[in-house]
Amino acid sequence: MTWYDEAYQGTSRIGLKATQTLFSEQSEFQKIDIIDTEEFGRALLLDGAWMTSEFDEKTYHEPIVHLPLAVAPKIERVLIIGGGDGGTAREVLKYDEVKHVDMVEIDGTVVEACKKYLPNIGTAWNDPRLHVHIDDGVAWVKKEHATPYDVILVDGADPVGPAEGLFNQAFFEGCKNALSAQGVLSTQAESPDMMRDVHLAMIETLEKVFPKVHPYYGSVMLYPGAQWSWIFASKDVDPTQIIQGRSDAIIEQSWLYNRDVHHAMLAVPNHIQRARKNR
Amino acid sequence: MTWYDEAYQGTSRIGLKATQTLFSEQSEFQKIDIIDTEEFGRALLLDGAWMTSEFDEKTYHEPIVHLPLAVAPKIERVLIIGGGDGGTAREVLKYDEVKHVDMVEIDGTVVEACKKYLPNIGTAWNDPRLHVHIDDGVAWVKKEHATPYDVILVDGADPVGPAEGLFNQAFFEGCKNALSAQGVLSTQAESPDMMRDVHLAMIETLEKVFPKVHPYYGSVMLYPGAQWSWIFASKDVDPTQIIQGRSDAIIEQSWLYNRDVHHAMLAVPNHIQRARKNR
Repeated sequence: MTWYDEAYQGTSRIGLKATQTLFSEQSEFQKIDIIDTEEFGRALLLDGAWMTSEFDEKTYHEPIVHLPLAVAPKIERVLIIGGGDGGTAREVLKYDEVKHVDMVEIDGTVVEACKKYLPNIGTAWNDPRLHVHIDDGVAWVKKEHATPYDVILVDGADPVGPAEGLFNQAFFEGCKNALSAQGVLSTQAESPDMMRDVHLAMIETLEKVFPKVHPYYGSVMLYPGAQWSWIFASKDVDPTQIIQGRSDAIIEQSWLYNRDVHHAMLAVPNHIQRARKNR
Repeated sequence: MTWYDEAYQGTSRIGLKATQTLFSEQSEFQKIDIIDTEEFGRALLLDGAWMTSEFDEKTYHEPIVHLPLAVAPKIERVLIIGGGDGGTAREVLKYDEVKHVDMVEIDGTVVEACKKYLPNIGTAWNDPRLHVHIDDGVAWVKKEHATPYDVILVDGADPVGPAEGLFNQAFFEGCKNALSAQGVLSTQAESPDMMRDVHLAMIETLEKVFPKVHPYYGSVMLYPGAQWSWIFASKDVDPTQIIQGRSDAIIEQSWLYNRDVHHAMLAVPNHIQRARKNR
């Protein structure tokens, strides 16, 4: 029984006691650890930072997927950048309207390890609509896309290490070019408390690229800070206008997400509202 | 530099690295530790469990105070049970309409230590409207109250140790008797994720006592679980009907709380909605 801790800035930490270490390997990109625990089930760390656990993963995967998919005019073609644990793809593939998902994950070792050791998180690997590409997401969005995407979900890690390129304006310009005119994007956007400057900078960066930008908020137990955030961006889609009936069947099974929670996530903490007004 | 960790169930933990231990004493009721830290400022533990820190305290104190005070028909007389760090009293006393606050804290040593070492949290100790009583909250609400309270805020610790009596039906019956007919109560109600059964049981217990019971949700960095919760209870007050203008000046200074956040907090996570329907 060993404690695995993510020590944020070396001054605060969140830890789980491992009953077993299932996988521990340095890939080309990062250190990958998958452990088993008593209360949180199996859990994944990348470079010592918590990515997901069976117990709390829905508090991250449901927001990143269901808020944008509930309001996007069309959801036939979805691009997931990152998302190596398979949880985001699983939630996306719950929608019958989704016809084609490209998942572009830079680290093939993460995908292989998660397929093997986190089968309860990635339950949709064999869905024929899912196309996994071990590739660089930054390069992927820059390519010519014959058919544009309806939805892009940026499910990367923190802006240090291999996910660094998923936070700058050039990347989001690429996403915009890969999207249809009515397309929508959602990206994880760090902690508004613990990484407030990064969060605010992401909002500003996205506002340079997309006409409509809406941060939204929730909580993920294993991530540092009281709240976690995502950002919804589009040319002209209102994130409060839920497409009638689309998510009904999904809500029956969801852990966190329902219509009330959808609207609640869009409430902006006062200190973030104030910071945005005062800049 | 020592790590202080709260290890919940011995299987997950949240820790802060102390730069200094300011106070450490076993009182009649519990072990009290106050430390200083680099990123979270000063922080309080009772029996090894995080109670509050300068960095995250507003994410707890604003919800417990401002949701009920924004909707209560009258807020002249307020009773706080617990709240030894002074943060709840501070937020309550921001309202000019508040004329008299009784704060009943069982552990005088907590109050003395917090007055001395957490002056940035308890900034209203000298407000003449505040009356601190070192007494048992359970006994206090059972007494005859010549003038009833308009608001009762139950700001106790977890249901083990000295706060145990603040979670049962007899206590809430006492609260109801101490309240005016239009009075409202708000109590902290544990983590809907990590202490789901306790949270659901509290809702049921309060529903046996009050006609209108509404759980509400937020996040507190140092508390175990993705979300934290409170419960609003009354005879007939709608927690969505904010009293016009009452909180305007307070919102200008608040960290988390504003009108959008008020409504957002009342969204019930899907698994809790489902559990309540299915019981």
